[in-house]
Amino acid sequence: MHSLKSLHQRIREAFSDTRFTHEPLQLYQPISYTLDLGGKRLRPVLVLMSCDIFGGDIEKAVYPAMGVEIFHNFTLLHDDIMDNAPLRRGNATVHQKWDTNTAILSGDTMFVIAYEHVAKTDPAMLPQVLDLFNDTARKVCEGQQYDMTFETQDNITIPDYMQMIRLKTAVLIACSLKLGAILANTGQAKAEKIYDLGIELGLAFQLQDDFLDAFGDTAKFGKAIGGDIATNKKTFLFIKAFELAKGDTLANLSNLFAGNGITGPEKTEGVLEIYRELKIDELTRIEIEYHHTRAMEILESFHFEPAKTREMTDLMQEMLGRER
Amino acid sequence: MHSLKSLHQRIREAFSDTRFTHEPLQLYQPISYTLDLGGKRLRPVLVLMSCDIFGGDIEKAVYPAMGVEIFHNFTLLHDDIMDNAPLRRGNATVHQKWDTNTAILSGDTMFVIAYEHVAKTDPAMLPQVLDLFNDTARKVCEGQQYDMTFETQDNITIPDYMQMIRLKTAVLIACSLKLGAILANTGQAKAEKIYDLGIELGLAFQLQDDFLDAFGDTAKFGKAIGGDIATNKKTFLFIKAFELAKGDTLANLSNLFAGNGITGPEKTEGVLEIYRELKIDELTRIEIEYHHTRAMEILESFHFEPAKTREMTDLMQEMLGRER
Repeated sequence: MHSLKSLHQRIREAFSDTRFTHEPLQLYQPISYTLDLGGKRLRPVLVLMSCDIFGGDIEKAVYPAMGVEIFHNFTLLHDDIMDNAPLRRGNATVHQKWDTNTAILSGDTMFVIAYEHVAKTDPAMLPQVLDLFNDTARKVCEGQQYDMTFETQDNITIPDYMQMIRLKTAVLIACSLKLGAILANTGQAKAEKIYDLGIELGLAFQLQDDFLDAFGDTAKFGKAIGGDIATNKKTFLFIKAFELAKGDTLANLSNLFAGNGITGPEKTEGVLEIYRELKIDELTRIEIEYHHTRAMEILESFHFEPAKTREMTDLMQEMLGRER
Repeated sequence: MHSLKSLHQRIREAFSDTRFTHEPLQLYQPISYTLDLGGKRLRPVLVLMSCDIFGGDIEKAVYPAMGVEIFHNFTLLHDDIMDNAPLRRGNATVHQKWDTNTAILSGDTMFVIAYEHVAKTDPAMLPQVLDLFNDTARKVCEGQQYDMTFETQDNITIPDYMQMIRLKTAVLIACSLKLGAILANTGQAKAEKIYDLGIELGLAFQLQDDFLDAFGDTAKFGKAIGGDIATNKKTFLFIKAFELAKGDTLANLSNLFAGNGITGPEKTEGVLEIYRELKIDELTRIEIEYHHTRAMEILESFHFEPAKTREMTDLMQEMLGRER
């Protein structure tokens, strides 16, 4: 069995051993730049972890795991164009550092490179692996579409939102776990069950991200808080607040988000005050806990040996930004 | 054996039997729109034709053939954003009719749909099919990058240009033919040889497109001539002309492309006059004929039965816009 730490190490090695730069440089430098920005590499670690706990050989999962990470970074690259985001992991986004055309085409090429890595797998598993990856990629695109559509749509409900983050975020977490299971040659039933675990974990993960953007400790979170409030992003917190606010509170909340002259820290503080008044922080924590608990229940139902359960639990804790 | 006409018919049916529209409509309507614009569907017909002449069952090649066509249309969709093109097949491009974000994301989704179709193949063939498709997709991206880079680069040579169109256009034609061969379970040697035929055919096809843009009959060509001249596109004709022009002719040519007040039909006519003076039309025809002949030589080296050779010859003639 591999420790969580050694799985992280294996993925770091795999990426540092791979050269993504070659001719034409205009196409490949942005890809290399994007992949060098790092990130926590949670998804490929999930692939290896799942492969490992199901008794597979993690070396056979390294390339497909990289494929998932490269795919994830491709989606960020294109999402950053669509969101007109200037920064990613504290650095200029590709469309800012180069231009939009470069970001589109380098992204498309990363998508191909993702498929190339996913394809480096046991031929016997390839049909299953490819079906999973295609299904996931399509759903992630659908999730991004719903996210964009919601920007200009009123009356988004919590179920709408949960469906959006399921597609945009949770299916890729679930795909990572199922991919590891398939590569370990686990049966269909277990592969489906670990996928379900991934969905719950992915939902908790995204809700935690929403939560930290409003209530996080800037130093720990690694990015400034209030970004979602500043951009009126329809997060769980936003939707829940409008669902619960009444009378003056609703009027104040609407006013703050209508951008009637109140911006910056004043807007953030005003919104956070209402969120606290409505106990949005607590309600969000309850929702996160609900999905985290469901994920834990599924994990326990596998009856893995305790050491394996512990490594997986640690990884889930890491994803949810908690002290171990 | 299937006639060329019946292969066209089979591909038309396959597309008209497939519904690309579902939820979320914002994502799928542009995909449906793009695929409904039609086009000649040459690439999927090449897949079926190749499968057929190698004795395969064309029904097993229909989905992968559609995958190639969907991929081709995805590249057009993203290229149109990058080229800021207003029209495609006489209709508004997706980024014009909707917006750039929609065009990026619908394109990404079409790319996934292409992989889904390609994956609907005999599992025994899947590794080979997927390797071919990945390799092709990556090269097409590289070709598009070279095409964009050339726009702002001087001193592009004919070999540079031929390498660019090999990547951007010819490899997908070659991929189509090789895909059919793989699906017919032809051996490696024959599959490689039909790929080489496709490269030659693809080069001739692109050069013919360059030629017709300058010297074509508008009615037959289906689009206005002079588009490449108007946009200073570095086609075979442009590069050859600058290679051959000397003295006053070179000065005139440079002046016309420098856009010093001379635009529209006056620019087109001026450039065409110099092209004719330098015999660029004839030189381009010779280059097309060279690659067409090489393709025909490869075709003949297979020693197919005459009826098969004839159908394939007819398809090649159709691609090169000739009367049969």
